[in-house]
Amino acid sequence: MAGPDRASEEGLIARYFAPLAGSGADGLRDDAATLTPTPGHDLVVTADAVVAGIHYFSDDPPDSIARKALGVNLSDIAAKGAVPRGFLLTLALPDDWTEAWLAGFSEGLGAAAAEAGCPLLGGDTVRSGGPALIGVTAFGEVPSGGIVRRGTARVGDRICVSGTIGDAALGLRLRLEPEAAWATCLDPAQQALLADRYLHPRPRLALAAAIRRHASAAMDVSDGLAGDLAKMLGAGRTARIGVVPLSEAAARARDAEPGLIEPILTGGDDYEILCTVAPETLDALLAEAAQAGIPLAAIGTVTSGDGPPGFEMGDGTARVFAAGAFSHF
Amino acid sequence: MAGPDRASEEGLIARYFAPLAGSGADGLRDDAATLTPTPGHDLVVTADAVVAGIHYFSDDPPDSIARKALGVNLSDIAAKGAVPRGFLLTLALPDDWTEAWLAGFSEGLGAAAAEAGCPLLGGDTVRSGGPALIGVTAFGEVPSGGIVRRGTARVGDRICVSGTIGDAALGLRLRLEPEAAWATCLDPAQQALLADRYLHPRPRLALAAAIRRHASAAMDVSDGLAGDLAKMLGAGRTARIGVVPLSEAAARARDAEPGLIEPILTGGDDYEILCTVAPETLDALLAEAAQAGIPLAAIGTVTSGDGPPGFEMGDGTARVFAAGAFSHF
Repeated sequence: MAGPDRASEEGLIARYFAPLAGSGADGLRDDAATLTPTPGHDLVVTADAVVAGIHYFSDDPPDSIARKALGVNLSDIAAKGAVPRGFLLTLALPDDWTEAWLAGFSEGLGAAAAEAGCPLLGGDTVRSGGPALIGVTAFGEVPSGGIVRRGTARVGDRICVSGTIGDAALGLRLRLEPEAAWATCLDPAQQALLADRYLHPRPRLALAAAIRRHASAAMDVSDGLAGDLAKMLGAGRTARIGVVPLSEAAARARDAEPGLIEPILTGGDDYEILCTVAPETLDALLAEAAQAGIPLAAIGTVTSGDGPPGFEMGDGTARVFAAGAFSHF
Repeated sequence: MAGPDRASEEGLIARYFAPLAGSGADGLRDDAATLTPTPGHDLVVTADAVVAGIHYFSDDPPDSIARKALGVNLSDIAAKGAVPRGFLLTLALPDDWTEAWLAGFSEGLGAAAAEAGCPLLGGDTVRSGGPALIGVTAFGEVPSGGIVRRGTARVGDRICVSGTIGDAALGLRLRLEPEAAWATCLDPAQQALLADRYLHPRPRLALAAAIRRHASAAMDVSDGLAGDLAKMLGAGRTARIGVVPLSEAAARARDAEPGLIEPILTGGDDYEILCTVAPETLDALLAEAAQAGIPLAAIGTVTSGDGPPGFEMGDGTARVFAAGAFSHF
């Protein structure tokens, strides 16, 4: 067969990954890369891994898997108010990997990296001895001291969330129970939207500058809005949440089966940005988000107290989701 | 049971990993850390993963596994002439992990990180769905533009290697065939040395400054001296290698079974530094290595040509090891 020896890590790298290499990566011909923040900036570093059969389905398209592996990391970079600078890839392959899979994976990875302006800087390829695992370390930068932290919300701050919540969790359910009664209430375009939201996180990079300028605290919603909000507020602070933005598809599903509010609010994989902002700064944040073309909605207020956040159910009652975040662990 | 819920990633992090957190990590209470090189410096970034049953034995002591996972990355940092600054950990655990394992792992990790001045900055904990995988991204820094690359050796440069070669490969063999005839020729201390070299890489951080000041090219020896040297020289350059430094234990093993020269030179896991240096700079490099307390030996010369490096066998003949590097992949 033409091309690299299937068993040669060097050959695989040269063929599939060297074309994705950025400045400082030395064409992936070395064991390390250099990365230097713009003067007056800090690097922001984060690492998240996705595992076949746990964070995605083994038979998902390989380009989608690559997009997810990079996207979940870029989502953290955006939530910290940072601009992407590059990433490292740790690719642990199962024994039955194929060149076709790797070709699709590297193609999707390259496309996602190019869209985000976030080149590949290096990494490692190993046998997993089990399912595939894709680990990414992503780098971004912020003006010195400008990182937006998770735990710095103040009582009285307004709480905002980007986009719509629960689509990915419903997309996952749809995958597992395509014939559920609620699913059959959705038209094909609505089903496709939910499925796509599960498969393809869309990191809110365009929102990073507004977050950095205006937010008092921020994180991305990866493990469910209810649990991530509780994590963000920690001890001594809680929240009352009003209307959470839902897609038409999610709203229709919930109308058909009211119990779906639970996976919507706790199901994870949203990759939207959750942030807090001083009340007097809310309008500036919303205006800047609108200018960036990213939907952002004020959904509640930080209060003092220790219980989990209460979600208003529209009938005057509030529900808490004490089980907290969905955990991939 | 007191302590965190076994299934809570947040609880595990707070208990086992937050004590290891460095400045910029925000106590591991956020999804990202900041890292800023000293003014006038570049960051050097590298990622390597180790997998149970492939890079180490599942029943190795957990503190040894942690030392290996960090050590193989620090070895790359040292070989690039860099000073460690911190690391990210991606810990993918099998379903049968225990708190005792995690306690031992985090203890070993903390000790190795403290020795190297390389604090934990963040990471991710996931289920592996198979064997454990430990991925590390390590950060170091060099004065701007000062990284020592792998591919920049010149014809005529002298080739040097630190420490002794082949001990870890023999340590692995000893583990697999403890009753082999050659093994029984070794005394217990020699057996223990080989076993320890397999279990505990010792990254040559003390050699980094000398490498940066004097070496024309450098890499760490992780996949076997013969193959890594071929990788370093690439096309158009090759080498003639004389006496390769062996420990007394390795020399005795090879004397007992001459065929062991093959695993010694190709077996991997040495984590020594291989570098090249202009002939007129060799003495300065050797003197600085001696001052740093690290054995460094000149073993050959870079020549022009395309074959794999030839290793003199002591009888006037030279052998090549065309199979090249041992591959974990």
